[in-house]
Formats: sequence, C-alpha cells, structure tokens
Amino acid sequence: METMTTKAMLERLNWRYATKRFDAKRKIPADTWSALEQALVLTPSSFGLQPWRFVVVTDQGVKEKLVPISWNQTQSAECSHYVVFAVKTELGEADLDRYLARMAEVRNVEVESLAAFRGMMMSTLVPPKPGFVVKHWAALQAYIALGNFMTCAAMLGVDTCPMEGIEPAKYDELLGITGSGYATVVACAAGYRGDGDRHATLPKVRFAAEDVIKRV
Amino acid sequence: METMTTKAMLERLNWRYATKRFDAKRKIPADTWSALEQALVLTPSSFGLQPWRFVVVTDQGVKEKLVPISWNQTQSAECSHYVVFAVKTELGEADLDRYLARMAEVRNVEVESLAAFRGMMMSTLVPPKPGFVVKHWAALQAYIALGNFMTCAAMLGVDTCPMEGIEPAKYDELLGITGSGYATVVACAAGYRGDGDRHATLPKVRFAAEDVIKRV
Repeated sequence: METMTTKAMLERLNWRYATKRFDAKRKIPADTWSALEQALVLTPSSFGLQPWRFVVVTDQGVKEKLVPISWNQTQSAECSHYVVFAVKTELGEADLDRYLARMAEVRNVEVESLAAFRGMMMSTLVPPKPGFVVKHWAALQAYIALGNFMTCAAMLGVDTCPMEGIEPAKYDELLGITGSGYATVVACAAGYRGDGDRHATLPKVRFAAEDVIKRV
Repeated sequence: METMTTKAMLERLNWRYATKRFDAKRKIPADTWSALEQALVLTPSSFGLQPWRFVVVTDQGVKEKLVPISWNQTQSAECSHYVVFAVKTELGEADLDRYLARMAEVRNVEVESLAAFRGMMMSTLVPPKPGFVVKHWAALQAYIALGNFMTCAAMLGVDTCPMEGIEPAKYDELLGITGSGYATVVACAAGYRGDGDRHATLPKVRFAAEDVIKRV
C-alpha cells in the first residue's frame, strides 16, 4: 500500500487553515464525503469504546439556525457539511456490553472470551472512579476524532473550521440530542474556502518548534 | 498541490491500529520524524493558543523507566520515538501576550493592531469563567494534536499507539515537567509494528456507521 511523502503531507497541513468564509455554492462530492464519514468512524478511542455520535448537518434551514447559537459565526450556514460531535455523558455496563457484542460479532468470537477485557474496562470505567468525569473523558476522545477529521479533510483538499464557540445545550435542543444520553461538545464545518476569505493567505502562527518540542 | 485519493486515505486509516508490540530494532528515519514533529507543531488549537509541550523521548533508559508508570505496558521501551503530551495548567495575560507577540512577528504587524483579538481572548479565558477548567480545555487541544499525529503517522507508514494508561504525575517527575506550568495528559508511542503483534491482523472493531452517524 502506498504511503504519502513527507513533502506532500506537510504541504497539505500547511494548506489547511481555520476557514472563516466558505463558498456556499460548492458542495463536497458524495464519494469524498463518504470517505470523510468513514474516517470519523475509524477514529481510535479509549478502549475502542467510541463514546460518540457524529451529527452531519446538510439541511440548509438547520445550518442557518445554528448561526445565532454559534456566536453568530456563519460557517455553519456557508459550509457544505457541518459535523456536530456529541459524546456520552454517562457510561454503564450496558454500554460496555454493547461494545463487546460488536467486538464478538466483528471478530467472530464468543462474547464470554472477552471477560478479562470486560473486567478491565469495568474496573476503570464503571462506576467511574473519583475524579473521573465520563463526559470529560468522552470529550477527549471526540477531539481525537476532530483532529483526525481535519487532517483527513486536508489530505483530500477539503477545507474545515473547528467550532468551539458554540452553545452546546442549544445545539442539543435544535438537533434533537437532548435527553439521548449524548451531549454536544464541539463542531466542525467542512467545504471549500470562499474567494473572499482573507484568512486563507495569512501566515500560519505557530510557536517555534524549539519552544514547544522538548527532547529527552 | 497534490491531494490524496479517498482510496489511499482509507487504506492508510485501515492499516493503522493501536500497536502493542513494536520492532525495537527499527527506528524512524530522521526526515520522517522531522515531518511528524512539524505535524505536531502545525496542529490547530483553540484561538491558536497552542497550550502544549510535546516531549519526545528517545533515550532508551528513560523509555524503559516509563514502563512501570504506564501500567507495565512495554510500548515506551520498544517503540522508536515516544511522545508525551503536556498541557498548560493555568493561563494568564502573559500567555496571551506571548502568543500575540509571536503573531505580530510572524505576520509582521504591530502588536497593538491585535487589541480586539486580545480583548476577545481575555473575556473568554482570563480569568477563567466559572466552570471553565484551563487544564481540561488544554487537554482537549492536546487530543487534537494526538489525533492529527496518529493520522499523519499512518499516512507516512509509521505505527503508533495512543497511551492513556499512564501515571501522569510520575511522568511529570521523570521528565522534569513538574512545576513548569505544564502537566502530562496523554502519550503516544511511534515506530514500526513487530512481527509478533497479533493485534496487527485482528479485524478493527467499529460500530456500524448508521449507529454513530446521524444525518440532519
């Protein structure tokens, strides 16, 4: 299988930026979007538990309703596909068993053979130890998905903008998530940069490598 | 600039798995590692603030000392490069000003011209609003870096294993992070899978797309 060159990879990462204005007329082709959804699904997570839901918003009416509950940022309305990352707020035995059933199915083994793994997860996660906040742990996993998603999109030439400036509870309400056991933590707009986005050409601001990387 | 095909991207993501046993003799070439460090540096973050330090451990003695404080998992000892993700535990005006000074330098503008942006960051981050925990916010950003890092490594044919089963306070002590204003939150081993890793060929366990993706 073909790997990417370091040069091509760095070109894609340098091409990427937090897109402020999308070309509202340009939509992500179905096969490209399908690959990005698969990338989301393939994201690694703690114990493999995937404590998330990805809500993909393409309905224009809903995308516009997201603007006032996103600090009036317009990316949701102008982008092609808008992804809302929602995570589990609690975790119980049933969640572990749902995952173990899936593991048994995919790997064609008896669920009983996974007892040691189940015990390990139980002792760590259910009930949560003092100081362990399920929603925080799950949000961290969702941010792995966010990082993976933005990088994969850049590899395919799709622009993104991570959206932390949002009102999660109002997102939950609008998207019908409230009461589902999941809660919005972050979102990401995807599509293609618009001609008028001055941020596209601004030099990327990063601390010098020697200021953030320490070698031991 | 060349983009990746969806097929190549999905092949790389399916090739990736949480590597349990690395080939201890095989080291990541310098140019490949340099690109992965640059990928870390280029990771997007909230406001662009980069509230992190990446500690790259290649010293074999230190790599081995990490094993007992990583639930006795051996990845740190066997991998080529081991990255510890540490984040800011507090955030003050000086941190914002350090970032704004860098922005002014990179974009060749007067720092005074960034006053509105500074005000916006101050009102959101300094002092933290009730319920806003700097270390949690910073950890989320580090997990974007983790997701970006694992995906970039896969694109280059480098194996990784995210490491959450670690003792962060003992990491801080061993790596000289304690008291620096940063704290370890997660780690990631990188290198090349060993021949004997049975996890390499196990089918990947993911919930069906229709169970994690909701369309609106």
